[in-house]
Amino acid sequence: MSVDTEVRQRLGVDLPPPVDKSNAQQISTEAFDLPSRDASSNNTKLRQDIPTTEDEDIEGLPSHPSGIIVTDEAPTPNPYMKYVDILLGGLSPRWRNYVIRGVFSAVMLAIFSKIISMGPLVVSLLVLIIQIKCFQEIINIGYIVYKSHNLPWFRTLSWYFLFTSNYYFYGESLIHYFGFMMNKNNFLQPFVSYHRLISFLLYTAGFVGFVVSLKKTYYLKQFTLFAYTHITLLILVTASHQMIQNICEGMIWFLFPVSIIIANDIMAYMFGFFYGRTPLTKLSPKKTWEGFIGGGLSTLVFGFIFAGILCRYQFFVCPLDYDEEKMMISTECKPLPLFQLSTYAMPKPFSFLKRTMQLYPFQLHSILLSLFASCIGPFGGFFASGFKRAFRIKDFADTIPGHGGFVDRFDCQIIMALFTNVWISTFARVASPNKIVQQVLALSDENKEEFLRLLKNYLKH
Amino acid sequence: MSVDTEVRQRLGVDLPPPVDKSNAQQISTEAFDLPSRDASSNNTKLRQDIPTTEDEDIEGLPSHPSGIIVTDEAPTPNPYMKYVDILLGGLSPRWRNYVIRGVFSAVMLAIFSKIISMGPLVVSLLVLIIQIKCFQEIINIGYIVYKSHNLPWFRTLSWYFLFTSNYYFYGESLIHYFGFMMNKNNFLQPFVSYHRLISFLLYTAGFVGFVVSLKKTYYLKQFTLFAYTHITLLILVTASHQMIQNICEGMIWFLFPVSIIIANDIMAYMFGFFYGRTPLTKLSPKKTWEGFIGGGLSTLVFGFIFAGILCRYQFFVCPLDYDEEKMMISTECKPLPLFQLSTYAMPKPFSFLKRTMQLYPFQLHSILLSLFASCIGPFGGFFASGFKRAFRIKDFADTIPGHGGFVDRFDCQIIMALFTNVWISTFARVASPNKIVQQVLALSDENKEEFLRLLKNYLKH
Repeated sequence: MSVDTEVRQRLGVDLPPPVDKSNAQQISTEAFDLPSRDASSNNTKLRQDIPTTEDEDIEGLPSHPSGIIVTDEAPTPNPYMKYVDILLGGLSPRWRNYVIRGVFSAVMLAIFSKIISMGPLVVSLLVLIIQIKCFQEIINIGYIVYKSHNLPWFRTLSWYFLFTSNYYFYGESLIHYFGFMMNKNNFLQPFVSYHRLISFLLYTAGFVGFVVSLKKTYYLKQFTLFAYTHITLLILVTASHQMIQNICEGMIWFLFPVSIIIANDIMAYMFGFFYGRTPLTKLSPKKTWEGFIGGGLSTLVFGFIFAGILCRYQFFVCPLDYDEEKMMISTECKPLPLFQLSTYAMPKPFSFLKRTMQLYPFQLHSILLSLFASCIGPFGGFFASGFKRAFRIKDFADTIPGHGGFVDRFDCQIIMALFTNVWISTFARVASPNKIVQQVLALSDENKEEFLRLLKNYLKH
Repeated sequence: MSVDTEVRQRLGVDLPPPVDKSNAQQISTEAFDLPSRDASSNNTKLRQDIPTTEDEDIEGLPSHPSGIIVTDEAPTPNPYMKYVDILLGGLSPRWRNYVIRGVFSAVMLAIFSKIISMGPLVVSLLVLIIQIKCFQEIINIGYIVYKSHNLPWFRTLSWYFLFTSNYYFYGESLIHYFGFMMNKNNFLQPFVSYHRLISFLLYTAGFVGFVVSLKKTYYLKQFTLFAYTHITLLILVTASHQMIQNICEGMIWFLFPVSIIIANDIMAYMFGFFYGRTPLTKLSPKKTWEGFIGGGLSTLVFGFIFAGILCRYQFFVCPLDYDEEKMMISTECKPLPLFQLSTYAMPKPFSFLKRTMQLYPFQLHSILLSLFASCIGPFGGFFASGFKRAFRIKDFADTIPGHGGFVDRFDCQIIMALFTNVWISTFARVASPNKIVQQVLALSDENKEEFLRLLKNYLKH
């Protein structure tokens, strides 16, 4: 199937013949200009050129020059789409999209459950892979929109910065959790001791490379893309790193937030589909107040029940810890009080039923987490929508059939992961006796004595 | 003195009558376009409009539309310049600038020494003030260059983000050093316990505000400025925060790096002035290889001697520590081995003079720090120069007469502060017995017992 046909199918409408190169250049230059400049004349022209897709009526958006991306920088067409075409050939594009979207949602859920069952280290790997995919999608857009084809080193430097920042953050996590074990290995030991220095020098080399690569004709473009890369790194790398920290504090801190965001997405979609009347924001014209409120309420209920289920399993609530005595990663623990059944007085209106009830305290936390997920979470999505409009693209990529790119699917997860990380450090991080002992052992002999003297002093009081 | 005259004087040449508003608009729109587009025609026109200044021959740069900044957004003219005019009226602009630059260098050095003598807390305050001034200068440029006059909320949001990020970082430092003291105060205690949560929610409010403020006509502009603000924050807030961490680890970690960067600046200028022949980079046409190498070598010597002097005083080498027993900030310490005189074998070529020599180990560190300051430090300056060229400005502001803006003066300090921070954490951070005791005391009773059991176990071995 030709690239051109693939685009027609993806958009679900008949496209005019592919835009020729000179035209494409003109359009994407336009995308870099201030939208306010000659918005009226040019946008109208664009809208006549390429009709909007049927099922994504993005009102007010100068319709997306998808054609440019595809003619210029086509992601290789998904080979499985051929079979999908055979199976769903008879359906209208609208229904075809629903079916594809549904099937791939189920596929993703199945894969996700399998990965969860494989434990924290595999899940961390998944987070890393998703982060890399998202980075690729966003950098690709910068690459196309800013026409950086002949910009010296842009792609190389972007990927190099991704590498160094991951090297730094993942290294920090590994050292935090396994530092003692790694220090016993002669090969790894210097990488532990000099981790920050190595990371910093690696980054500095990239920075120097950037300055050296500056060329008179491209100054503004190069600085713009430098900022673009760094903002992308800032968002993706911090978020994924914090997500991995969450995983290490107990799988529940990963699985619960991710699930309520997904639940909120699905429920808001359902409520919007059946009861949606009042538009919520111009950024995402398909979102409605009915979906927002209905989705929010069902997320609260779902979260409360789901939290109760997760709290029962040590697999979910135990943090990753290295047991110095058994010399292995411990998978068991005495759960935090947060994850132990407690007795609460029944709230007034229901007290005629029962005086008390048994709950996991985490279920009360779940209410606040769900509130955040359903009230603030969607703003992550609005932000991504606004970004897509600013850069005049429909999706970040077409990696997941029916869903768009990875970024389109994980936009709301980012802010939730950050919130969860803050939540843990506020309410649930407990200093492990093990780690403090290790700190004491790392002291100099003199300081050890000083430590013991101070400690005795305090314990007497 | 009218604004117009002030500009003429600042540029040191006769300016044509001030650019009228419509013209200014056209020029700064141009600054946002891709420089490659119609560089030839328009830039030439600009160069005819406003002649370049005499002493800053920025070859190849479309001459700076300084006039725009002043006509449109004039920083209030410096009132002291009137007296300077009276005193230096007879000098040529070139010499006038040298004198002003020299005098204000001396003034800054004097103020700086006074502040240093006032101790770490006052110095931290100075860092905060400089950070705010730099932020103001950079944001101001974004504001003018991207013509964000009618952009909803841009300035408010930028300052709000600066406030929240400082609230977060300074709070973290305060808690790290004075947490135990603050916890005893009923009013401060919740700000300690919920610090991250409060900071995160404050930031999130700004983020939501940004999304709500998005307006169709301005999407790309708003996202560009969002990125612009965040990159500025990323650079300035992290650097200043790390600088303050450095100060807390001992004043020497602030004073030494700052001084060698200044020394390198001055010495490179001197060497360049007297021996400069070979241009170093197109980014800063006035810098020469002779200045780079001569400056580097003198910095090594200066650093080695200066390090030896600083190491003698507890005032410089002692970290900030809260003495739990005396209930006060301790200003004394037993210096780290790094700051204690040791005996070294004399290097071979000099061994006929003396077999051994007495040195502070920090003096050996000083060699590597000076190497970084003189080899990599200047790239901070090149980066800033490139930025100024990309945005077609001559200086970031005119806050310090003869020097430009704060950013112009502190560009190389940023990367040095980051490097020093990494250096400390690699070679000189020592866990304080005091802080570990505080961690132990914060454990639950059950965990305290577990801790003591583990500790006894280890100490037996």
